[in-house]
Formats: sequence, C-alpha cells, structure tokens
Amino acid sequence: MTAPRRVTIADVAEKANVSTAAVSKVLRKAYGVSPAMDERVRAAMAELGYRPHTAARGMRGQTYTIGMMLPDIRNPFFHEILEGLSKQLDGTDYQVLIGPGGSESASQAHIMNAMIDRRMDALILVAPLGNRRDLEETAKSVPMVVIGRHDRSPDYDAVVDDDLMGAALVVDHLVELGHRRIAHIEHKITGRNHPTTLPQSVRAEGYRQAMKRNDLGSEIDIVASTYSEEGGYLAARELLARAVRPTAIFAGADVAAIGVFNAVYEAGLRVPQDVSIVGYDNTSFAALGPISLTSVDQDGHAMGTNAARLVLERIESKRTRSVLLSTSPTLIRRRSTAPPPA
Amino acid sequence: MTAPRRVTIADVAEKANVSTAAVSKVLRKAYGVSPAMDERVRAAMAELGYRPHTAARGMRGQTYTIGMMLPDIRNPFFHEILEGLSKQLDGTDYQVLIGPGGSESASQAHIMNAMIDRRMDALILVAPLGNRRDLEETAKSVPMVVIGRHDRSPDYDAVVDDDLMGAALVVDHLVELGHRRIAHIEHKITGRNHPTTLPQSVRAEGYRQAMKRNDLGSEIDIVASTYSEEGGYLAARELLARAVRPTAIFAGADVAAIGVFNAVYEAGLRVPQDVSIVGYDNTSFAALGPISLTSVDQDGHAMGTNAARLVLERIESKRTRSVLLSTSPTLIRRRSTAPPPA
Repeated sequence: MTAPRRVTIADVAEKANVSTAAVSKVLRKAYGVSPAMDERVRAAMAELGYRPHTAARGMRGQTYTIGMMLPDIRNPFFHEILEGLSKQLDGTDYQVLIGPGGSESASQAHIMNAMIDRRMDALILVAPLGNRRDLEETAKSVPMVVIGRHDRSPDYDAVVDDDLMGAALVVDHLVELGHRRIAHIEHKITGRNHPTTLPQSVRAEGYRQAMKRNDLGSEIDIVASTYSEEGGYLAARELLARAVRPTAIFAGADVAAIGVFNAVYEAGLRVPQDVSIVGYDNTSFAALGPISLTSVDQDGHAMGTNAARLVLERIESKRTRSVLLSTSPTLIRRRSTAPPPA
Repeated sequence: MTAPRRVTIADVAEKANVSTAAVSKVLRKAYGVSPAMDERVRAAMAELGYRPHTAARGMRGQTYTIGMMLPDIRNPFFHEILEGLSKQLDGTDYQVLIGPGGSESASQAHIMNAMIDRRMDALILVAPLGNRRDLEETAKSVPMVVIGRHDRSPDYDAVVDDDLMGAALVVDHLVELGHRRIAHIEHKITGRNHPTTLPQSVRAEGYRQAMKRNDLGSEIDIVASTYSEEGGYLAARELLARAVRPTAIFAGADVAAIGVFNAVYEAGLRVPQDVSIVGYDNTSFAALGPISLTSVDQDGHAMGTNAARLVLERIESKRTRSVLLSTSPTLIRRRSTAPPPA
C-alpha cells in the first residue's frame, strides 16, 4: 500500500546541480532567476518527469498531503496515534500535516474547512465534535477516517477502542479491591447537544453500566469536566470536598488523572492509601515511577497505523465501502490503586 | 497586524444556501454536480469575490498557511509555543499547520521541503538542525522565523531565550544550596557536526561557564543524551552508577527531567534528599504536585506570540531586515532542589 516515489524538488536540484531554493524560485517564478538558471532547472524537471504539486497541479490533482485534526495537541495519547500514523506513511509519498482543532465544534469545523481548502487528499479526525450528518457531508468531498467516535457511517471509516469494555475493566478492578464509592470524571462539552458516540460519552456510559452490574447504581457519581490537567484538578477538588468523599477516582483520560493527583496531593491525602486513581490511555506519564498510574491501554500506536492503512486504501484503491475497526482495551494495574482505607 | 478577512467556502455555502461539501465539489469539479448547482455556487462566489486559494491560485498567490516545524510533538514546551502562535493568528486569515520534523536533519529537511512544495506562505522552525547556510538558502525562498537557535542571520528572524543565562541561574542556585557535584544532561545529535548555536549547545556551554565561575571546573560532568523521557532516564542511570555520584542533576529540558525522576526513583533514592533535580522550560509537568520540579522559565507562550508577529510582518509588510529577539529567563524554585546530603 505504498505510492510510487514521486520526484521531489530535491531530486530536481540534484540533477540540475543547484540548490533546492533555486528550484523553488523557478517554480514560483520569483524575481532574480536568470534565464539560464530557469532553463537548466526546467530541463532537469522535464528529464525527471517532475510535476510540481499542490498549487501547480490541476484542481483534481493530488497534493500527497493528509490532514490530521487533533482537538488538543497536549494530550499525550494523541502523540501515540500520530506516531503510528507517521510510521505507516514513512516510505510513501504522503506527508501528514497537523491541524490544531481546539475544543469547540466551531473551531474544529474551521480547521476542517481550512484543510479541505488546501486540497488535502484525505482527512483523519481525532474525536471530532459535531453531529454525524456534518461529518458525512465533509466525507462526501474528501476521503476520511474518524478516530475515537463510535458512529458507524457509510461515508467514512472509523477506528475505535471498545470504550464500554475499558470502563468496565476499571470499575471491576476497583470493586475487586473493595471500593464502592467510585467516582468518574467525564469530558463534557458545554453548549449544544453532543453525540453520545464520542469516546468520553461511551466511557461514562460504560462506567454507569458497570456500576449497576455490580449493584452500585446508588453510588454512581459523575463530575462533568474536561480531559485536561486543569479539568481533572477542578473535578477532583469538587469530589474531595464532598461530605463523604469517594475512595477511588476514575478519570476518563490520563491527562485528567494528572490533575487529580495534584488535587489529592494538595488536600494532604495519599495515593493509593486514601484515594485510588485510575486513568485511561496508558500514556508514558502513567508508567512514570513516582506516579505509577493504573490505566486502560487502548494502543494509540495501532490506532494510528490502522487509520493510515484505511486512508491510503481510500485514496489509492478508491475503496468506498466503509470500515469500522474496533479493538479491545486491556487494564494495566499499577500502584495508584489499592484497597480502600478501612 | 491582521489580514483582511478572506471570503471562505463557508461564506459561499451560506450565500448559495448549499453545504460546504457542495461548494467543495464545485471547486474540484467533482462528478455529480448538477449544472444548476454549479451555476448557483459560482454566482455566489462571484458576488462575494471568493478566490479559491492554494490549488486554484496562481503560483505566486498566497495560501494563507504558515507551516510550523516541530522536531518533537511530545515536548510540552513546544505546545506552549504553538499556543502563543495560534492565539496571535486568531482572527487573521492565516492558519498554522504543523509538520512533524523528527530528530534528524534529513527528516527535518524533508518536512521543510514538503511545506515549501505545498506553498506555505511562511515557515516557523523550532530548534532546527542543519547548518546556517542551509537555513539561509531556505529563507531565500520563503519568509522564515527560527525559534531557539542563536544564529544571527540577515535572511531570517530568530526568537530565542538567553540560554547561557538560564543555565547560569541553575548552577548558581545549586551552588548556593551547597552542591558541588552538579552534573548536566545535554541533548546531543549523533552524526555530523551540529552548530553550537542550538539551544541545547548553548545551555551546556552556560553550564560549563557557570561551573568555572564558581571554581567548580573540575566537577564539570556532562552526559550526552537526548531531550526525551528515555534520554533523561538513560543519562541519569549512567550518572547514578558513578563511583561518586552527583548530588544534583541539571537536565536541559523538563521532558528529560521526567526520565531522571524515573531513574532516581528506580535506584531507591529520594528527591531532593539524595539527589536534587532541575529542568528547563517550566512546563506544566514541573508544577505538578508530586513532582514539583525546579525549572527555568523561558515563556514559550511569548515566544510563539513573537514568532507570529514577526512572520506576519515579513508576509504582509514585506519586511526584509532581519530581527533577533532574545528574552531573559527566570528560575522557578520548587521542592526538587534542596541542600545536598551531609
């Protein structure tokens, strides 16, 4: 599934024995290019069959660019997705460029349009907001893979982790340890109604179902916040201020669990003796010695690799039948969870 | 310093009362567009004065895209630069797209060429490798701002932190606490000779100078590694295995300090009772309660803001005289540093 290697300006530069900057100047018809230089570079281009892409190609030509929308560049889980994606694109002629999408559907729609405007050959969207209809509209104009959302669409591919199962693994682990007052921190966008297919919504639902299954329906305690350090911190402060505080906090993402650590630490409490903490994503942060966070592993690297495969199939084999690829998470037990205080 | 707002496909869609996907289809002359739809969309474009950019524009037209090369998307300091940059571009018509550059000069050159190929209006490069001559060649074909490198070039702008001073602040702080065996972890690229103007090289030099100034020339101890979790971990393991181990470790970046924590923890030692740790960048990680890392603050947000200002000046006011903008760092003292063991 690799594209034939395209001739680049570096090849042209080498052939013409000039700098890449000189080739670039000829391409953009910049001032200060001598007729001799112009001829030399154009001869090299012709010989190599170089076709300047993006701007120079026709409207229907390829740009060999895949746009990846990340809602938050700080979330280390997204770095793993990018890593898997980049590795898979290595050796092909495709280049990934990242568009920072922000945490609102308006800013995400903006960057999606910006990437389409710039003729990206395909889009990979990580946990995009907005309703499915809008995503499908976009998918009609550009090959698209959505990571994290559980919608099944005929118009785009989806790569997801079984978030229901992931949340169940967490709750069952804590219940086994003897916890009953298990709270959950959810990522909740304010404003308009958002789909229930977002990973955060599915994790919250998985938590609810697993609590009920363990006869702990009356203990369900969800704080709506955000998957960010600050979000985790504020939510945990709220939980720790309760008259009867939880003995375990399940943050829906490791990045939020960082903030939970901070709040617990600030309250003069110990992890795990006073409060157990669980994250989601099993980022490198979780493995960090002084933290040692129990977390759900959903293998971001494989998600990125799979997204790259699917998107190249769509571009190159013109596959149009949609695929939903769901993988099972595992629980990584570490020192941040232990039996509750007696 | 804001560009006049450009008409977008969203505006055209609203005017023509069709979806943005439909506009996009008309633009790319896709199949399945009815003549009526085509006419309606084109009429709206004409009325609004919409000029499809990137692919559709002439070779010398603008794409309103600024390419930002990040050598490592995991380094949280770079997120702060991006945040400052994005805030400053907000409300202009420019969009930043991020190119993952990797840690080698070949992969960085590849992404730089890829961004030039895709007609970015300007490049912002964060701590790029390679020699200055190559950067200047690139700067001759596209407006450019380099963040982190201390070269003064007539061809591009530079935004730097005074890394010599930053390293001196760290050494002086540790000496004041009573440390003498202060080791440093440097980010060192293997292979060809790399310039001494990279932030990592200047920090190492600042460490050397400050040690000598404090009559500790004979205690200079630098481990060549990388600014990454793993790099910090491996370097610290080496340092802790010395017959006489250092009482303080100055990692050239917070991200490497994370790995140092891990190695110290693994060796059964305590921070700061047995070993003091200092980072650089004052990322949000440093402020984290259980970590509380003493670090140098170089205000990445302001660096990003300044880079955006400079790059817009170059694009819009056609400024060609180069600027070097250097700011002073400050030391943030936290609990990871204390007097050495008696």
